[in-house]
Amino acid sequence: MRILIVNPNTTASMTVTIEAAARRVAGDSTVIEAVTSSMGPASIEGYYDEALAVPGLLKEISQGEREGADAAIIACFDDTGLDAARAMSSIPVIGICEAALATVSFIAQRFTVVTTTQRSRVPIEALVRRYGAEGRAKVRAADIPVLSLEDPLSGATEKLRAQMASALEEDGAEAIVLGCAGMADLAARLQDEFGVPVVDGVGAAVKQAEALVALGLSTSKRGAYAFPAPKVYTGLLAGFGIG
Amino acid sequence: MRILIVNPNTTASMTVTIEAAARRVAGDSTVIEAVTSSMGPASIEGYYDEALAVPGLLKEISQGEREGADAAIIACFDDTGLDAARAMSSIPVIGICEAALATVSFIAQRFTVVTTTQRSRVPIEALVRRYGAEGRAKVRAADIPVLSLEDPLSGATEKLRAQMASALEEDGAEAIVLGCAGMADLAARLQDEFGVPVVDGVGAAVKQAEALVALGLSTSKRGAYAFPAPKVYTGLLAGFGIG
Amino acid sequence: MRILIVNPNTTASMTVTIEAAARRVAGDSTVIEAVTSSMGPASIEGYYDEALAVPGLLKEISQGEREGADAAIIACFDDTGLDAARAMSSIPVIGICEAALATVSFIAQRFTVVTTTQRSRVPIEALVRRYGAEGRAKVRAADIPVLSLEDPLSGATEKLRAQMASALEEDGAEAIVLGCAGMADLAARLQDEFGVPVVDGVGAAVKQAEALVALGLSTSKRGAYAFPAPKVYTGLLAGFGIG
Amino acid sequence: MRILIVNPNTTASMTVTIEAAARRVAGDSTVIEAVTSSMGPASIEGYYDEALAVPGLLKEISQGEREGADAAIIACFDDTGLDAARAMSSIPVIGICEAALATVSFIAQRFTVVTTTQRSRVPIEALVRRYGAEGRAKVRAADIPVLSLEDPLSGATEKLRAQMASALEEDGAEAIVLGCAGMADLAARLQDEFGVPVVDGVGAAVKQAEALVALGLSTSKRGAYAFPAPKVYTGLLAGFGIG
Amino acid sequence: MRILIVNPNTTASMTVTIEAAARRVAGDSTVIEAVTSSMGPASIEGYYDEALAVPGLLKEISQGEREGADAAIIACFDDTGLDAARAMSSIPVIGICEAALATVSFIAQRFTVVTTTQRSRVPIEALVRRYGAEGRAKVRAADIPVLSLEDPLSGATEKLRAQMASALEEDGAEAIVLGCAGMADLAARLQDEFGVPVVDGVGAAVKQAEALVALGLSTSKRGAYAFPAPKVYTGLLAGFGIG
Amino acid sequence: MRILIVNPNTTASMTVTIEAAARRVAGDSTVIEAVTSSMGPASIEGYYDEALAVPGLLKEISQGEREGADAAIIACFDDTGLDAARAMSSIPVIGICEAALATVSFIAQRFTVVTTTQRSRVPIEALVRRYGAEGRAKVRAADIPVLSLEDPLSGATEKLRAQMASALEEDGAEAIVLGCAGMADLAARLQDEFGVPVVDGVGAAVKQAEALVALGLSTSKRGAYAFPAPKVYTGLLAGFGIG
Repeated sequence: MRILIVNPNTTASMTVTIEAAARRVAGDSTVIEAVTSSMGPASIEGYYDEALAVPGLLKEISQGEREGADAAIIACFDDTGLDAARAMSSIPVIGICEAALATVSFIAQRFTVVTTTQRSRVPIEALVRRYGAEGRAKVRAADIPVLSLEDPLSGATEKLRAQMASALEEDGAEAIVLGCAGMADLAARLQDEFGVPVVDGVGAAVKQAEALVALGLSTSKRGAYAFPAPKVYTGLLAGFGIG
Repeated sequence: MRILIVNPNTTASMTVTIEAAARRVAGDSTVIEAVTSSMGPASIEGYYDEALAVPGLLKEISQGEREGADAAIIACFDDTGLDAARAMSSIPVIGICEAALATVSFIAQRFTVVTTTQRSRVPIEALVRRYGAEGRAKVRAADIPVLSLEDPLSGATEKLRAQMASALEEDGAEAIVLGCAGMADLAARLQDEFGVPVVDGVGAAVKQAEALVALGLSTSKRGAYAFPAPKVYTGLLAGFGIG
Repeated sequence: MRILIVNPNTTASMTVTIEAAARRVAGDSTVIEAVTSSMGPASIEGYYDEALAVPGLLKEISQGEREGADAAIIACFDDTGLDAARAMSSIPVIGICEAALATVSFIAQRFTVVTTTQRSRVPIEALVRRYGAEGRAKVRAADIPVLSLEDPLSGATEKLRAQMASALEEDGAEAIVLGCAGMADLAARLQDEFGVPVVDGVGAAVKQAEALVALGLSTSKRGAYAFPAPKVYTGLLAGFGIG
Repeated sequence: MRILIVNPNTTASMTVTIEAAARRVAGDSTVIEAVTSSMGPASIEGYYDEALAVPGLLKEISQGEREGADAAIIACFDDTGLDAARAMSSIPVIGICEAALATVSFIAQRFTVVTTTQRSRVPIEALVRRYGAEGRAKVRAADIPVLSLEDPLSGATEKLRAQMASALEEDGAEAIVLGCAGMADLAARLQDEFGVPVVDGVGAAVKQAEALVALGLSTSKRGAYAFPAPKVYTGLLAGFGIG
Repeated sequence: MRILIVNPNTTASMTVTIEAAARRVAGDSTVIEAVTSSMGPASIEGYYDEALAVPGLLKEISQGEREGADAAIIACFDDTGLDAARAMSSIPVIGICEAALATVSFIAQRFTVVTTTQRSRVPIEALVRRYGAEGRAKVRAADIPVLSLEDPLSGATEKLRAQMASALEEDGAEAIVLGCAGMADLAARLQDEFGVPVVDGVGAAVKQAEALVALGLSTSKRGAYAFPAPKVYTGLLAGFGIG
Repeated sequence: MRILIVNPNTTASMTVTIEAAARRVAGDSTVIEAVTSSMGPASIEGYYDEALAVPGLLKEISQGEREGADAAIIACFDDTGLDAARAMSSIPVIGICEAALATVSFIAQRFTVVTTTQRSRVPIEALVRRYGAEGRAKVRAADIPVLSLEDPLSGATEKLRAQMASALEEDGAEAIVLGCAGMADLAARLQDEFGVPVVDGVGAAVKQAEALVALGLSTSKRGAYAFPAPKVYTGLLAGFGIG
């Protein structure tokens, strides 16, 4: 089983973190292929970055599917481009936010998502509502730029810890969801420290992708995710091979 | 007052229809500038087309703002790219779906949106929920390709009429919302025929844009729509001038 | 275009404030006619005052329509009597709460309504839910009597400012809605002071009324807003001319 | 224990029906006092009638309280004037819609309200949502004028039966709620005929009123139902004695 | 009229408290029969205790119905076993949480439930949602074991008072609901102390049971509460007499 | 990895079906241990059967955990006893309804659950709401007793197919969820026949259980799922070893 993980920002070092987290939890017969988008923002912080990340992301998923991937994962907690990718693909496509929320729902009644920037808080609250976790989940931002997670001197992890502590004390959280792909390497350590389940979306998405493939399930092609109708696509985006 | 209307698909003849509908309702001192995106799908039918229309759309809005537009309208009923455009801009940005839903809510308690294709039904249902009209609105698809609206021999208008009739009879609709920018020229005629209010999103959005400008209001730059953080944007998308 | 604005309380000095705010934003060809109800409470603070304001309000709207008004506005943030007025009228009728919520929704994802008294907080929360802004909006009361807004020595504006500051800090508000018609003159100044959009319902309602008239739209007479059935109305209320 | 029941329309024959239904279920020590409003519409069908019924209704409740009533019931299924009456009174005030929905919720998971006219359907759907029964309840209109219920030759009861049958077959209803005070005499007979629970709001409200009095509970005077602030009420409404 | 009240925990002293509270509010012609379950946990604190209390509870209700009870009450605020009991019985069955929420809804727009342990908070929040009071109610836990309510030296009542005070100050509560059957004797005293309505579920349920019996209403046997289908029940649970 | 699957009804032949379905999708290193409850109903159809199945179910999960299971699955689509089992256990516990809904949500926007009896429809609708799929899912009953699924001559599968066809045509379903553990062997065949994804909860739960174990996640012991407090459990249920 080959699972493609696309880091939809263009920062290759973050892809390394993501790939390592994915491999730690992947099954023995699963091949993880992590790629960095070649087109778009260096990090995804808010609606604008989300939008600009989509074409590069779709290109990678389209190519990965042609090269034989059995499932694809979008490794950004905003689940950017998810619906478009599903409509375009025959293989299952998983977002790390939806995977994390589905996973934490099996082990906690109340939980808090801790993400990076305030720009991302409201979009993630919209995802919480979309995925039906409204009333169970709160979203907090640690006020840290995404890329600061890669800099041990930035204090980012300490700010993340502070929000986790507040989540437990003030939100009644029973578990924590890490709300950024760049936090994928921290889950196990923070789970040990805080003594509550800590869910990383990258790992969660790998297991959901494996599950769908093993169950013989893929995106329905009836209704909202039907293949795009044939039509002319103009400009630089035309090269995806579907239009 | 200058209002930019972007047709985010690449079909210039549809822009003509949109521009005419906008001018019919614009105030005396309003200048309507309608542009056709140069990049993306020929029509927007579903998630994939939506996603591929965004970069071209953002480019037009960004350029329009630099050239002095006071407000911008996204003339696609999926409100594609709306949040990204708002985050990027200082001027107000209006989607035609949100404008239509806001407008019809002043004149009817129950209404039905009639859109083109089944691929668009579920995305519009999500917008209905996002904009708080859940429980008041139903969404129907007339099963007509968007561009067939331009062909008088396609039978598209008849299929639209049939869905309107069903909406009144089966849904208890008190008003109809036309769920595609390409239907903008039909509202007045259908309102006369059916004897209930028929709302076109293009016209509605023009008035909302005029309203915001007159009220001295623009997108909040605090929170979800804060300007994007400075960062590197790689590839062909880099030319937008913000990153 | 003639727009009737009814102040449903009996305090004429508040009508002056309302009328001025309306004229500031009205289009060149719009005639604003503001009237004070002759029957009812001196200010509307809570459910009881709302109910007693309705007959006088309906009388003014009924008379205004007969005299040629193209649209009517109910200038009380509780939107009192709105549904009854719509059922009774051929012309569009707009409440200032619904107009303010519709308007702010185009420019902010999260916002706070600041109203006058605690008696009004829960009724406005019900309107927030009715108009579909639940989850986006919070409501705060500044604990000031409505009429104290007219007394510069009352400290009312300072209490309002304090709640606005708390809204930004504690609620994550991206914009503020002024939750009383008597605050209509404060919006521009407070917007400048706080650096976030501040929406006044009176101005918002004027633009919505203009929009509906320009779009050729009026209240649907099918369903919930059908004209009242002919019947006997007994007592002093019988003089409205419909029953 | 004295329970005041106000028929807020001016049709005294309907008060007779209501009073009889109330007495059938009242406890031995309960005195039922039913009064007909002297001011307002002959029947309440939709928003306009609702609004015009309120002053006469409030007057009766205010007088009843002064004369020693322990609780008051508003015998119109739209629960018109309920919040104003509560704010004005020290005694508990019950609406027959809220009483019926509370009662049926103890004996069925899914139910249908059958009301009279289409004008009343949407207002009752709003009450269903307000009282938290959304998702459990459907509302149907039998398309019968309220007063036709008093005319055995009108065919009204047959139309009501037809909607009940459809509710059981199409809605999955497990119980029926009669959605008009004028149907209060039909509940027992229809329950026998259809073999499912049939709830009448008048009877239900009597028992809720008795319950509150027995439990020593009355409307909270903290928050939304605080007594109205002292102020000037102008015009014919001024005689209620509170302002 | 005979009303059976089952204390589904095995602590007989708590049944004494419950029975006294029930008798204080019961009608003259009502016979209260309170029984203690013989099987299950000594107190019900959270999901596990709830589940283990159900068989003993069902056994008592089944026996009570055979012996002529007209209605049954489950005297645990988690409403444990309620749906099963309804499906099994011909007589009405009432939970004290649903009775309390229905009752408080007639007298307050916003209220807070104060329960015992954190383990019970989330289950009660789920009941609040089930019964449609979401948005009106908050739930607080006083962090007191259920049985400590019986020990005057435990400080339990003081902790309860502290949460009530916080509910009024921080939650905007207009009334308080006591969230444990073991608090049934405290309602009147706390109502006097705090000057807001305080609702006890045991008393509320007695009045709801009396109401249903007087109204001639019982659980619908159509749909979700249809009698169980005949089948084999194995093991010690088989003795209930239905299977 | 050892996964315990408990069939909470007492019909061993259904356990055979369940176990086979589980093994078909389990990973190479997963050991599936399926057990039949020794106490409770022969099939679970509605609330009463659900309740009576819980003690036997908890006993099996408790024993399985002591014997080294890494995760447990409750193989009844009502997810009966799920919360109690989680509170009692250190290992993850998964319900097949929640697993099926989580799984189908990755591949379809709209779907229909087809279950067996009308008694189960409303309880499953409550689960749909609990798990946040309200608005995406419909529930249909094929009106077949659970055990008829084991009898090829019963016509049960044909009735199931008829409901699936209606779901696609009338509900706009993009995928089907089989709403009974006894249908676990039918998923692959029906998926081929109907050309849309068909999700079986048993298989889905196996993959979710594997996922949680691989991710190092288990039920949070903070909050709602904290271990039960030590106390006396009386009667035959006392033998579970926790109380």
